[in-house]
Amino acid sequence: MDPELALFANDAFYLAFSEQDVAAMDRIWARRHPVICIHPGWPALLSRTAVMESWERILSNPDAPEIVPHHARAFVMERLVMVVCYEALGSQMLTATNLFVAEDDKARLVHHQAGLCAQPPDPEPEGSRTVQ
Amino acid sequence: MDPELALFANDAFYLAFSEQDVAAMDRIWARRHPVICIHPGWPALLSRTAVMESWERILSNPDAPEIVPHHARAFVMERLVMVVCYEALGSQMLTATNLFVAEDDKARLVHHQAGLCAQPPDPEPEGSRTVQ
Repeated sequence: MDPELALFANDAFYLAFSEQDVAAMDRIWARRHPVICIHPGWPALLSRTAVMESWERILSNPDAPEIVPHHARAFVMERLVMVVCYEALGSQMLTATNLFVAEDDKARLVHHQAGLCAQPPDPEPEGSRTVQ
Repeated sequence: MDPELALFANDAFYLAFSEQDVAAMDRIWARRHPVICIHPGWPALLSRTAVMESWERILSNPDAPEIVPHHARAFVMERLVMVVCYEALGSQMLTATNLFVAEDDKARLVHHQAGLCAQPPDPEPEGSRTVQ
């Protein structure tokens, strides 16, 4: 898969998150591959149903802090692309990985994992990203 | 890749960790693919050199707590296999993902990420594991 396609899908993932758009979030997750989602502090969610239920809960929270991704880097791994980035979530900084697979000529998410980062890099301008 | 091969390599990863065996840890990480390692609270390490330097530091700590993996689950993703498991690390519980690629008929690690888990599942007998 073209890593630029994964970076584009990574932007779409954070846009769906920011805009609390459950339907857009649903479109981003893979339908014909296993999916894995690990929110900070959570156990692993290992089915599409459990993953989407979690997003419905998270995105329906009216007090959800703004999320701003930065330092997105794409790594081609066989036919998948791993995007590593940081998430500024309110006053917290998280390290995140998003793994994309091709389905119907689109990059769809099969894995998202985010955890607290104690020593993040300095923020970059929003949207900065690199194919490694 | 046969997911059993990835589960075997996952066991080898935690054995190298437990036995503080830097050479064994080095053999587990991929040589011809990008590698990504995110230790709990750390920023992402994005080169093999940085990843192995981190393991040399971690594995040379004489006070390192015991690490016991459990609930290992393998998911085939195209030609890669993602193993999701929990790490009992002293009194802490972490959720971890380990992504393996085939190199020279072996499963080698291209991604490891671990973060604190506030609500882990009950421990299973050591070594329990499943291909999904």
